[in-house]
Amino acid sequence: MENKRKPYQLVSREWKKENTVIQLKNTSIGDGTLSVIAGPCAVENEDQIFTICEFLNKHQVKILRGGAYKPRTSPYSFQGLKKDGLILMRNAADKYGMNVITEVMDTNLVEEVAQYADILQVGTRNMQNYQLLRALSKIDKPVMLKRGMSSTMEEWLLAAEYILSGGNYKVIMCERGIRTFENATRNTLDLSIVPLLKSVSHLPVIVDPSQGTGVRELVLPMSLASVASGADGIMVEVHNQPEEALSDGAQSLYFDQFGELMGRLKTVAPVFGKSLDLESEKILS
Amino acid sequence: MENKRKPYQLVSREWKKENTVIQLKNTSIGDGTLSVIAGPCAVENEDQIFTICEFLNKHQVKILRGGAYKPRTSPYSFQGLKKDGLILMRNAADKYGMNVITEVMDTNLVEEVAQYADILQVGTRNMQNYQLLRALSKIDKPVMLKRGMSSTMEEWLLAAEYILSGGNYKVIMCERGIRTFENATRNTLDLSIVPLLKSVSHLPVIVDPSQGTGVRELVLPMSLASVASGADGIMVEVHNQPEEALSDGAQSLYFDQFGELMGRLKTVAPVFGKSLDLESEKILS
Amino acid sequence: MENKRKPYQLVSREWKKENTVIQLKNTSIGDGTLSVIAGPCAVENEDQIFTICEFLNKHQVKILRGGAYKPRTSPYSFQGLKKDGLILMRNAADKYGMNVITEVMDTNLVEEVAQYADILQVGTRNMQNYQLLRALSKIDKPVMLKRGMSSTMEEWLLAAEYILSGGNYKVIMCERGIRTFENATRNTLDLSIVPLLKSVSHLPVIVDPSQGTGVRELVLPMSLASVASGADGIMVEVHNQPEEALSDGAQSLYFDQFGELMGRLKTVAPVFGKSLDLESEKILS
Amino acid sequence: MENKRKPYQLVSREWKKENTVIQLKNTSIGDGTLSVIAGPCAVENEDQIFTICEFLNKHQVKILRGGAYKPRTSPYSFQGLKKDGLILMRNAADKYGMNVITEVMDTNLVEEVAQYADILQVGTRNMQNYQLLRALSKIDKPVMLKRGMSSTMEEWLLAAEYILSGGNYKVIMCERGIRTFENATRNTLDLSIVPLLKSVSHLPVIVDPSQGTGVRELVLPMSLASVASGADGIMVEVHNQPEEALSDGAQSLYFDQFGELMGRLKTVAPVFGKSLDLESEKILS
Repeated sequence: MENKRKPYQLVSREWKKENTVIQLKNTSIGDGTLSVIAGPCAVENEDQIFTICEFLNKHQVKILRGGAYKPRTSPYSFQGLKKDGLILMRNAADKYGMNVITEVMDTNLVEEVAQYADILQVGTRNMQNYQLLRALSKIDKPVMLKRGMSSTMEEWLLAAEYILSGGNYKVIMCERGIRTFENATRNTLDLSIVPLLKSVSHLPVIVDPSQGTGVRELVLPMSLASVASGADGIMVEVHNQPEEALSDGAQSLYFDQFGELMGRLKTVAPVFGKSLDLESEKILS
Repeated sequence: MENKRKPYQLVSREWKKENTVIQLKNTSIGDGTLSVIAGPCAVENEDQIFTICEFLNKHQVKILRGGAYKPRTSPYSFQGLKKDGLILMRNAADKYGMNVITEVMDTNLVEEVAQYADILQVGTRNMQNYQLLRALSKIDKPVMLKRGMSSTMEEWLLAAEYILSGGNYKVIMCERGIRTFENATRNTLDLSIVPLLKSVSHLPVIVDPSQGTGVRELVLPMSLASVASGADGIMVEVHNQPEEALSDGAQSLYFDQFGELMGRLKTVAPVFGKSLDLESEKILS
Repeated sequence: MENKRKPYQLVSREWKKENTVIQLKNTSIGDGTLSVIAGPCAVENEDQIFTICEFLNKHQVKILRGGAYKPRTSPYSFQGLKKDGLILMRNAADKYGMNVITEVMDTNLVEEVAQYADILQVGTRNMQNYQLLRALSKIDKPVMLKRGMSSTMEEWLLAAEYILSGGNYKVIMCERGIRTFENATRNTLDLSIVPLLKSVSHLPVIVDPSQGTGVRELVLPMSLASVASGADGIMVEVHNQPEEALSDGAQSLYFDQFGELMGRLKTVAPVFGKSLDLESEKILS
Repeated sequence: MENKRKPYQLVSREWKKENTVIQLKNTSIGDGTLSVIAGPCAVENEDQIFTICEFLNKHQVKILRGGAYKPRTSPYSFQGLKKDGLILMRNAADKYGMNVITEVMDTNLVEEVAQYADILQVGTRNMQNYQLLRALSKIDKPVMLKRGMSSTMEEWLLAAEYILSGGNYKVIMCERGIRTFENATRNTLDLSIVPLLKSVSHLPVIVDPSQGTGVRELVLPMSLASVASGADGIMVEVHNQPEEALSDGAQSLYFDQFGELMGRLKTVAPVFGKSLDLESEKILS
């Protein structure tokens, strides 16, 4: 039964030579654009999400991230604004013509989240939640599949295969760090997996250096290293007041840090054959 | 906010001094009995499950394990008989007066699985599927929570806390091996966590040496070591024809190996203050 | 070239069917005796080592452990008494008719350590120090090879093969925990490796639950679990004043805890076919 | 006693603000140059090392790597040409005005290796061989300290502290991948450690993507990612006939691959504020 060598098929380059491109409103992922996905860890209130969204829009960020349903290690931690959070994100994104990506944690929530989001994210804890993957294989929206924190590349590709084999070919892979003995960083960002994935699969690959390192100061260098490794984009956490954030404040960028990052990406991306999808006249210095 | 020291409460010994005892039909878990949970990895057909059940009953096993909904790494692997599997297990168990434990993989399946099972199992891949944990916190049946394959003890206890804090106090912890660099075994069975868990929490602890090692020959010694470490019971895979099993055959015991294991447990358990819950006249040699 | 399948030979059961027995003064390792190796992490002064030795002798411990040359993570930590420590250990052991095991950290120290010790220990950090292994392959004393903290079983056996292939067949393997993501224990004690090693190799296997867990309270249950898994013996740290110890105090047993452990082993060992090598009239209650 | 917070001192930025620069013959490490260290895994014969050296010289590589004493997992694998290998490397390097870096495996070999090498390398298996570190702290040559395969950043810095505290301040850190569960790559290259190291320590940091990934095709993208992460240089394996190499052929670059890498580095390095230390008229296209 189980073929040990390349048990995956639809996700493989052998099956499909050309890169998969995910078409969104006014931007694409995987077409040579360096996609920048940014936003807070969690949507906290109207003022927060609109403030962040306005800021991101000035930097021409096209995809807003934010958690409405939050998978938290403790049942006593802030669990997200749920449907209210989805609505706030949608409204904020619509005001600035942005796309929304947010996590879906359960089969019962797929319909609701799909109503408000442009991309549905499967979090690291649910990478092998196969019922959820099957449910997502039946919708007509892109899915970003974060790598399980102790998942091998093969297991990750097979999780993606669940989605493709059910009929949804719009899958984006997201490296977000794996769990190792090293505790100087929150996770160990595995950038070698990026060129390896790109060689065996046609799916686009995003890197999340915020989750991957857990350390704000490492987000800029690891974003650049992600681009150098061949990633199709990055996903970073930004907050108007990181020290007040209800979750993951320590890894959220300050606005000025994000501005610095965008400035660096503008220079660095072209060196690696990627463009930043900016209308030049709108670029901030 | 998030208290770093002992963020869990209801699962702790400080909250409840006495061991939690899970009362089942004609047996209990955590009351000094050494619980033996046994059965095939997956229910495959009527003949298989009844044959195994009859065998287990001769050995006075009180709790039948078996997968009806199987979380498989590949979408192309056997996924279980689903509801038909649940019915077969229930019928086989009822014929021999046994309890059924089986995995529930999704919130939508909680009601169905709870209809047929006496204990609902959360698998390693779903340990941090918080919507599922919340759904299980609302039912009146015991839940066995397998450790996530890269989960720390604290994260595991917090996952249990999700269930208790929702109102369901009948939680059983199950160590099933963690993911490490070592590939001589399928996982690394972490027996040190057993006495540590028993000291910080009142919940019963089961060890699964079949999943934990992935090697049939290691199941017997590691079952004995589990008892020595203080476990309240073990869960092992047994199959009438392991070489024909649709999943996990390499770690399933042959009938005679299981017989040998029961014989050894009969001698070993009392040395560690546990009894095997056997009616002496029925014991096989 | 490099043969991927069983690259080791001399250490394998295929090469030598019978268990290797290490003959020491008045005891043996690997002959069915449950060997108990005990003593402080480091030799600190004359009073300390003689006090501990006298205590261990009352419990009929035949092998004294203690560090004279200590591999410490920081250059500013206590590095051991060096040659003075070796002399103190030798004198204390001789007074009570015990054997000495101590670590050798460098090729230049092999001769000196061999002069005072009955067994030379290779520490976890030096498991792949091949010059040291080669030097030890040329001496006529037993060598205990601790597992590297991130070493696979195959690498460990190949390190032993270095010693055997140079001519020294008196090798003892010592499992002492591997490095994983789990931080509730100092290391993750990998007991599954014990029966696996015993099946593929003829060398005796000792378990060190003190280093393996780093937690005093876990030493007793994990010692018992080691015996149940099939180990030929255990190595534990004992100190007359653990809270004053110059190194590893948190994992050192108090005298009364060690007494309790010996009492339990006396009952448990025979259940697993091992004897404790005690002269019955001398046993303490 | 042991201070848990910043137990290292001399290696820290707090102790010394400015970057440490390692001065070599006609080049430096850590002064803004992007250092490229290249050569075969092992010196095999005169023809091989001279052929490779001539090729590297055309690419203006200033530092030749090559193993003379090889730490091999199996005692039956090729162990290096030893002193003959050192002499061959020295002669080849001298012919082309290059520096030599090679591994020293034992205290007894420090003097011999120091006679032929410009930089002495401590391999991953010896990172915590403290006697060796102390011996290296007494010589007047630079030491490159590879990260232990399961070493935390703190342990690594403390190993460096052994060398500095003994009087040798010329230490270079080399990230070479850590051991994790992922087996798609030989090790998991931990690039996040580069900016973290650079922030807490003044020592230069080199990355070895050959050892780090074990896959030839990943060396180019991971070299670029290393530069982007802030590394002071890279160390790569190159062989004139990788498929005939006596060790590590699968991760050695072909000559044309190395040429491509150098071409890319020439473009990429300046974007990250590094120069390639090339005399422009000599650059190959």
